[in-house]
Amino acid sequence: MRLPGIKDEEFERARVPMTKREVRMVALCMLAPERGQVAYDIGAGTGSVSVELALMGARVYAVEKRREAAELVRRNLRRFGVSGEVVLGEAPEALESLPEPQRVFIGGSGGRMEEIAAHLAERLGDGGRVVATAVTLSTLESALRAFEREGFATEVVLASFARVERGMMRALNPVFVLSAER
Amino acid sequence: MRLPGIKDEEFERARVPMTKREVRMVALCMLAPERGQVAYDIGAGTGSVSVELALMGARVYAVEKRREAAELVRRNLRRFGVSGEVVLGEAPEALESLPEPQRVFIGGSGGRMEEIAAHLAERLGDGGRVVATAVTLSTLESALRAFEREGFATEVVLASFARVERGMMRALNPVFVLSAER
Amino acid sequence: MRLPGIKDEEFERARVPMTKREVRMVALCMLAPERGQVAYDIGAGTGSVSVELALMGARVYAVEKRREAAELVRRNLRRFGVSGEVVLGEAPEALESLPEPQRVFIGGSGGRMEEIAAHLAERLGDGGRVVATAVTLSTLESALRAFEREGFATEVVLASFARVERGMMRALNPVFVLSAER
Amino acid sequence: MRLPGIKDEEFERARVPMTKREVRMVALCMLAPERGQVAYDIGAGTGSVSVELALMGARVYAVEKRREAAELVRRNLRRFGVSGEVVLGEAPEALESLPEPQRVFIGGSGGRMEEIAAHLAERLGDGGRVVATAVTLSTLESALRAFEREGFATEVVLASFARVERGMMRALNPVFVLSAER
Repeated sequence: MRLPGIKDEEFERARVPMTKREVRMVALCMLAPERGQVAYDIGAGTGSVSVELALMGARVYAVEKRREAAELVRRNLRRFGVSGEVVLGEAPEALESLPEPQRVFIGGSGGRMEEIAAHLAERLGDGGRVVATAVTLSTLESALRAFEREGFATEVVLASFARVERGMMRALNPVFVLSAER
Repeated sequence: MRLPGIKDEEFERARVPMTKREVRMVALCMLAPERGQVAYDIGAGTGSVSVELALMGARVYAVEKRREAAELVRRNLRRFGVSGEVVLGEAPEALESLPEPQRVFIGGSGGRMEEIAAHLAERLGDGGRVVATAVTLSTLESALRAFEREGFATEVVLASFARVERGMMRALNPVFVLSAER
Repeated sequence: MRLPGIKDEEFERARVPMTKREVRMVALCMLAPERGQVAYDIGAGTGSVSVELALMGARVYAVEKRREAAELVRRNLRRFGVSGEVVLGEAPEALESLPEPQRVFIGGSGGRMEEIAAHLAERLGDGGRVVATAVTLSTLESALRAFEREGFATEVVLASFARVERGMMRALNPVFVLSAER
Repeated sequence: MRLPGIKDEEFERARVPMTKREVRMVALCMLAPERGQVAYDIGAGTGSVSVELALMGARVYAVEKRREAAELVRRNLRRFGVSGEVVLGEAPEALESLPEPQRVFIGGSGGRMEEIAAHLAERLGDGGRVVATAVTLSTLESALRAFEREGFATEVVLASFARVERGMMRALNPVFVLSAER
């Protein structure tokens, strides 16, 4: 099992927003996938989280609604020599035909966090976990509300990183990381 | 007296780095200039701090070694209808002919923090204050060391701001603000 | 006019939560009170903001619903030799008999931000300003929603400070500072 | 392999300072230990990092100079049912009799970072890694200087976390995480 922490520049990025390396470390440690588990990456973006999940031994289903981003996820999976199914579509509909998950990462919800939470509440077994990152307050609020309503135990961390490059501190945008457990 | 807090976009900026609004608020409140006091702005950059100091009633001497930046400081002073002397040159030499200061802001030291501290130690009277911002660790370290060696009482705050724009958190780079008092 | 920035330990504190020095600097620069203006301090707590406002020349009305905290505000005003009216009661009712404000600081809303915003929308003239601090997400959300609904232009900053004491960084809790302007 | 992320309260703590959960996640992902590798935990404190390293499959040598802390490390290893050798002593001397490491975590250097770096430069093979956390600027500076002088490639991140508990943001102290690679 390879720990999360691939450097951002090792991914092909185009202009798709990416979960930054340090945030991936925290989010994926909180998600704690185990070898062989089914993991969804909802709103996969560049696929950086999908790649890390695959390297951690998960069976990855990357859901992405934008065609170009979905292609980018495929290219990044190939670039790291890992497999994963890329599903072009929007959650929660796109999740219906997939195998039941044990781990779910939500990098983007397209404003449909409540429906996604309701869907996951039905399909995620005991011990299942969801981790969502939120760069806006309203995403965090709706995620918190949605998962608490569905009976998940939640936990939230605000992660603010600055990279020190030649002594100069360069901030990454703060990100809320929400972990929800059944 | 106008409190510090001019919005960044109200200044003419060119490509000169600027002390951001929120940091100016903290740095200038720590500096606490009083009406009529002589205030230096060393490494004036865009002149944003010079403008705020002038609006706070200080007699401002802006020291800047780059010709274009010095011009920019002049234009920004004019833009806000305040006066201040712009000194083209490098501290500490450029400070020698200026009247004795009560307040000194250091936005850039050109790597000569020790000499600047030694100069100020001689010229700053009791109750005089220096505030320096540092975006690198080594600038902070050298400023701390220099002012402590010269017998100043120091205080340091790490200020990390994020602006929330349409719900989205956008980080400013973290800045150390050092305050030194005689 | 004295700039905000009184050290925390100069206030009498009891166990009442206090707006910390660095946050007071930012919040009060955003509020930008002018000499002679009527300023409310809603949820005054220790009275640290009331004291700063009074030192900045505002005519201060400190509203506090807890009897002991109201007493503490009085003692802190006396300690700094400034005057201000301490109103024992809860906003918005307690505001009704007070003169119309130009500046309002909200350090605590008792969960009644919407009613407070509605009240202020009626009583605050053009150019009037409100600054609220929020240490919880839900306070921020309700403040943002309330003031935007009432037609205020809003601005939010997340302020995270760490004090560096003998080289050691000690974090203050992050605070959202909301500024709303008519 | 279990990912890092044990909750702080699951450790026995006494009054020994501990590397907090979120920081452990980042530091250990940067360290990236592999199963069977020899890992030192220098300045082991509570042993929280030692426990995580052992759960990640490393062969752990925990170095701690305080007798009570060394005992605490032993108890925490037992509590999680993992093995590791606890060495009572101070780095670098205490490292001399240990097998050559591939991974080194430094949570505390006792002010001897330069000697530790020099020792590790001799004993750490190619691809070896060191991760050090620093809560003071001077520790960071001396670690950076020491490892760069010894020819390591370094990388530094400033990690600032706040835990959101019932909506309330509670800051952890900011920590610099330095990663050095041969």
